[in-house]
Amino acid sequence: MTGNIIGERFVVVSFGESHGVCVGVLIDGCPPGIEVSEEDVQVELDRRRPGQSIVATTRAEEDRVQILSGVFEGYTTGAPILMLVWNKDVDSRPYEKIVKTPRPGHADYPARVRYRGFNDYRGGGRFSGRITAGFVMAGAVAKKLLGKIGVEILAYSHEIAGIKCPQLGVEQIRDGRYSNEVRCPDPETAEKMKKAILEARRSGDSVGGVVECMALNLPVGVGEPVFSSIDSDLSRALFSIPAVKAVEFGKGFESCRLRGSENNDQFIMQGGRVRTATNNSGGVLGGLSTGMPLVVRVGFKPASSIAKEQRTIDLSTMTETSIVVPGRHDPCVVPRAVPVVEAVVAFVLADHVLRAGLIY
Amino acid sequence: MTGNIIGERFVVVSFGESHGVCVGVLIDGCPPGIEVSEEDVQVELDRRRPGQSIVATTRAEEDRVQILSGVFEGYTTGAPILMLVWNKDVDSRPYEKIVKTPRPGHADYPARVRYRGFNDYRGGGRFSGRITAGFVMAGAVAKKLLGKIGVEILAYSHEIAGIKCPQLGVEQIRDGRYSNEVRCPDPETAEKMKKAILEARRSGDSVGGVVECMALNLPVGVGEPVFSSIDSDLSRALFSIPAVKAVEFGKGFESCRLRGSENNDQFIMQGGRVRTATNNSGGVLGGLSTGMPLVVRVGFKPASSIAKEQRTIDLSTMTETSIVVPGRHDPCVVPRAVPVVEAVVAFVLADHVLRAGLIY
Amino acid sequence: MTGNIIGERFVVVSFGESHGVCVGVLIDGCPPGIEVSEEDVQVELDRRRPGQSIVATTRAEEDRVQILSGVFEGYTTGAPILMLVWNKDVDSRPYEKIVKTPRPGHADYPARVRYRGFNDYRGGGRFSGRITAGFVMAGAVAKKLLGKIGVEILAYSHEIAGIKCPQLGVEQIRDGRYSNEVRCPDPETAEKMKKAILEARRSGDSVGGVVECMALNLPVGVGEPVFSSIDSDLSRALFSIPAVKAVEFGKGFESCRLRGSENNDQFIMQGGRVRTATNNSGGVLGGLSTGMPLVVRVGFKPASSIAKEQRTIDLSTMTETSIVVPGRHDPCVVPRAVPVVEAVVAFVLADHVLRAGLIY
Amino acid sequence: MTGNIIGERFVVVSFGESHGVCVGVLIDGCPPGIEVSEEDVQVELDRRRPGQSIVATTRAEEDRVQILSGVFEGYTTGAPILMLVWNKDVDSRPYEKIVKTPRPGHADYPARVRYRGFNDYRGGGRFSGRITAGFVMAGAVAKKLLGKIGVEILAYSHEIAGIKCPQLGVEQIRDGRYSNEVRCPDPETAEKMKKAILEARRSGDSVGGVVECMALNLPVGVGEPVFSSIDSDLSRALFSIPAVKAVEFGKGFESCRLRGSENNDQFIMQGGRVRTATNNSGGVLGGLSTGMPLVVRVGFKPASSIAKEQRTIDLSTMTETSIVVPGRHDPCVVPRAVPVVEAVVAFVLADHVLRAGLIY
Repeated sequence: MTGNIIGERFVVVSFGESHGVCVGVLIDGCPPGIEVSEEDVQVELDRRRPGQSIVATTRAEEDRVQILSGVFEGYTTGAPILMLVWNKDVDSRPYEKIVKTPRPGHADYPARVRYRGFNDYRGGGRFSGRITAGFVMAGAVAKKLLGKIGVEILAYSHEIAGIKCPQLGVEQIRDGRYSNEVRCPDPETAEKMKKAILEARRSGDSVGGVVECMALNLPVGVGEPVFSSIDSDLSRALFSIPAVKAVEFGKGFESCRLRGSENNDQFIMQGGRVRTATNNSGGVLGGLSTGMPLVVRVGFKPASSIAKEQRTIDLSTMTETSIVVPGRHDPCVVPRAVPVVEAVVAFVLADHVLRAGLIY
Repeated sequence: MTGNIIGERFVVVSFGESHGVCVGVLIDGCPPGIEVSEEDVQVELDRRRPGQSIVATTRAEEDRVQILSGVFEGYTTGAPILMLVWNKDVDSRPYEKIVKTPRPGHADYPARVRYRGFNDYRGGGRFSGRITAGFVMAGAVAKKLLGKIGVEILAYSHEIAGIKCPQLGVEQIRDGRYSNEVRCPDPETAEKMKKAILEARRSGDSVGGVVECMALNLPVGVGEPVFSSIDSDLSRALFSIPAVKAVEFGKGFESCRLRGSENNDQFIMQGGRVRTATNNSGGVLGGLSTGMPLVVRVGFKPASSIAKEQRTIDLSTMTETSIVVPGRHDPCVVPRAVPVVEAVVAFVLADHVLRAGLIY
Repeated sequence: MTGNIIGERFVVVSFGESHGVCVGVLIDGCPPGIEVSEEDVQVELDRRRPGQSIVATTRAEEDRVQILSGVFEGYTTGAPILMLVWNKDVDSRPYEKIVKTPRPGHADYPARVRYRGFNDYRGGGRFSGRITAGFVMAGAVAKKLLGKIGVEILAYSHEIAGIKCPQLGVEQIRDGRYSNEVRCPDPETAEKMKKAILEARRSGDSVGGVVECMALNLPVGVGEPVFSSIDSDLSRALFSIPAVKAVEFGKGFESCRLRGSENNDQFIMQGGRVRTATNNSGGVLGGLSTGMPLVVRVGFKPASSIAKEQRTIDLSTMTETSIVVPGRHDPCVVPRAVPVVEAVVAFVLADHVLRAGLIY
Repeated sequence: MTGNIIGERFVVVSFGESHGVCVGVLIDGCPPGIEVSEEDVQVELDRRRPGQSIVATTRAEEDRVQILSGVFEGYTTGAPILMLVWNKDVDSRPYEKIVKTPRPGHADYPARVRYRGFNDYRGGGRFSGRITAGFVMAGAVAKKLLGKIGVEILAYSHEIAGIKCPQLGVEQIRDGRYSNEVRCPDPETAEKMKKAILEARRSGDSVGGVVECMALNLPVGVGEPVFSSIDSDLSRALFSIPAVKAVEFGKGFESCRLRGSENNDQFIMQGGRVRTATNNSGGVLGGLSTGMPLVVRVGFKPASSIAKEQRTIDLSTMTETSIVVPGRHDPCVVPRAVPVVEAVVAFVLADHVLRAGLIY
């Protein structure tokens, strides 16, 4: 299969360009009988919409989703679901210069080589964060599907600009994650994060961070080892989000410094069910879900578009030059990435729940 | 596609169980005309063979590879390549107890649920590190293929038990990575790592660590965004290696704490080619290779099998009990994981190099 | 992968419903740099458009294609290409009755079971011939791609209502296939076919027929045996066209009655190239193209929608009843299937030409 | 995915060469808990074994299957199932000449081009009918799986050398299909077929024929339209059997000459279930199973290896020459193809039954 398609039984196909006609997604394999409306999708989409906050880009897109196929009388039909938003607030003029002078940290240069100069470079084209609007649409349907068996996905800003969120309870995360602009459920931490972002913006710079996501109530034994292990497939999809540079499950890199006796999650009985006393594994053993909360952390680099002058190459002459990156951008992608991570985790789990025969 | 199959154009199919008849791999899609012998594969296989070192398991497997199809008169034919090793030094008796009392940190419990009690539990079955012998066989062929365009894969133990290797040059890594038991090219660090492993073993415990792997001379523009980005597909495959809990590219999680102006790799001309002044991205932008060295780090948890008593559940009565894990095991999987990481990176890149039309 | 997706390197995704918002197609994997315009696609689409002829349905759809992504400044970019036509002349009222009383010869009944009553039944939904508009769009792009290496696809009505076209030369087929309403390049035969169709229509009945399609200039050795042999993949795609019941290559079923000495195509030299004296194999040996014209014949059953009363079941009461099928329909689908068969053969060959590395 | 892999949830991977070490199959995705023994597979394999009959090749292969993974204590485990037979009675000397002078009707010439001369040509290599031994092994497991929901597959020689079998009842086919050497359940027809085969052999020639296969008790609604329709996927797999040139469902090409009113299967109630009065569709509507017997006919060309001198090319000099095909061969492949067709239909249906969630 080609690169814009993911999943086996809940298949997600991404399309659209940042400054093209539209961005969207096609889902094939969604079972019939799932109640889905444009409003359901819009709720999720509004969470990643630009132009809402002082910590994000000023590009003002209404981003009204249209469902063009696969839903009939309010329910999925089993046919392919095509959803898109039209691009409206497009200003492509500033991008003409990036054709020749690739922006540091962006895909301009390797994309030009790969697509032999035919790629739509405007606004980053297929490499823009804007394509994640399609991910969110797919995630909205996936969440509805997962809801059938009680699976819930919760993400939040775990760390921004080195400022870490303290350990929180599930209820606090659920209730608080969309209560502020930086999507951190702890108000005090959120305030610090916001300051750090604004400070970076003021200096024409950007900051990165970490989104943590958990999936609750996932049944035991979901995943298809060895190559479609639940962690394998999640990481693949998460690295498809622009700016992601690191993925870890449970204690992740920290567990590499523990001893086995500290890191192993010992089995206990709790409420008549097999549980583990700790959850260092992040709910994954041998690539299968354990029944404990699935916990994944996703590291985002600082946004590549900054207002500072940077060194680059003039590809027409193959000589060194410099660039000040044009366009309107996020000083920190983490807050808007929160609903994107939720969506991506949702569509991967939807696929695996179908593969495991837990829903049909 | 199902879980034991990965790749699109260089397809790897994993099979075999730890205590079954054999473990091995089938490759479909390898182009004709690649010179491959059993000796070529054996060299790689010997690097992960157990029973060689005081820092690893005492299971003594000869692990002589047999190529059963797809190679004729010393060259690949374009037909499926079937390779395997026969299991010989198998002692399955200690495993009978894990049927009922799952080992903490192992896949015993979710596997039993997923496969409804029919899975071959002996020695961990499909969840044993032993299946990575097949990965190494596939990697050996992939390396031959990649060699056609000069791509080279180098991995080494970057960190064990919290002991980190200092920054090394490529030559030092290439020459030194297999020069000692812990597979760390820096002799001083290697000595410390070895001590830490032996100390853990003495106390019936285990330690984890990090393998760093780089791919050199990978052409610009390899990868199939968005879902088969080069980092997406590498991370998927790397998380299929038992005990992996974290994957990061370039500066990884560290870059999340940098500013954009610190993290962006600025473009320069070097020897007539476009390069970047730094390589914080690890050679990946927008899911495409940049032409700089591809750098990935893979975090391994401490081995789950430890000699200490641990809490578990008797699944026949659903009551809490304890277990001392049976069998012969590695106190640290990292040294033997080094050739496995190389192999996995090799077969993913082989797939992508074919997908990009760089070899046919 | 799920059912609405086909291909490995030139991937075609079908979507849309007969009486929904739109029908269309998404292509992933088309290489960059192929010159494609909406006009190019429209030419092909116009050949299958309804409402043009007395031998076809009176549904009047303008069927103006829109390219929504993947084409920039007149060339493919390497990104997914989304194309669709909006449904306009929709009259869904007559279809309400088929929810309960499935039409003989149509998919109404098994579709209702498969999709548990949630499928969009209007106008047959996904099972309508209308979805082949998307096939034709994909075929239009595929033809452009194939044109790069000189491959040409030619189909025509080989037989309608038992009336067979005599053996014709390639030039006659190329020039004559779209010169009349029944798409048979032999004017005399065309006249007889037309009469047979109109006679069937007058009696409220329908007729079937056979489309023959050839691919010229296909290089030797295209196909991926054993399961993606060129004939395997073509037949799979051709059986996806509604009403197809039979597919044969070369002499097909007739060859089953020949002796080996009669059927084998003997090799000769012609113009400095290896050719065969006959082409009974239809240009396929062992699932690979031979360099001779690829010849496939596709059998279409008579259209299932007829004006006569037929027996069916009232599914709400599970009792026998009868139905007169509503809606506007073709008395013979063969003429409009000609461009569809061309398109399907084109997109399968485009996929295989990419898989064989003949274009990149 | 590459060419030697088929299926989505019951995945079949073919490997091995005619004169290599072995031929076999790997199955991934078979659910756990299916009772399978080597004896079960052997029964099926014995039906296609060479050297058993005067109407077939004299190559004497014992063909004892070995299950090398995926089965534990008599049941499938959910892990990949590797099965093979070792090649023993191999005489490769006569094949040296076909390297330079391709045999008419065989894949020698296009294979040499495709694999650039590296393919294992001995005995036809991957293009030999011998690889269907692997198909039969996969089919044996698939039949066990299908047996769980009562699906039964029955094939027989429907026509050989133009001699057609009269219409038979299901019981007669089930009981009689393996009761004679030509695998035709009608003894009188069988006798005529045998004579025709022997006569062809005597004259150094070969004959072709048609295998009919039906699947009984397949539930309604199996198939994944549009591109993985049940007929699409069956035809793809059937065209992967060497020598197949035509596939048709139900009345097939004959239905193209009927009127809609004659061809449509009208719905009736029978034993409380929805059935059709006729079964001209062969149990397929819109690519979904109808609940009626699925009926497919597969046309085999006369065996290409004949004892007569034929024209060919000396590829080393590119001049015309002649060849008398070496080796031991079947004068008619149809009888031995009967269990192969059953197997192929079985593994495609096993895949679709899993995809439809009817077994897990």
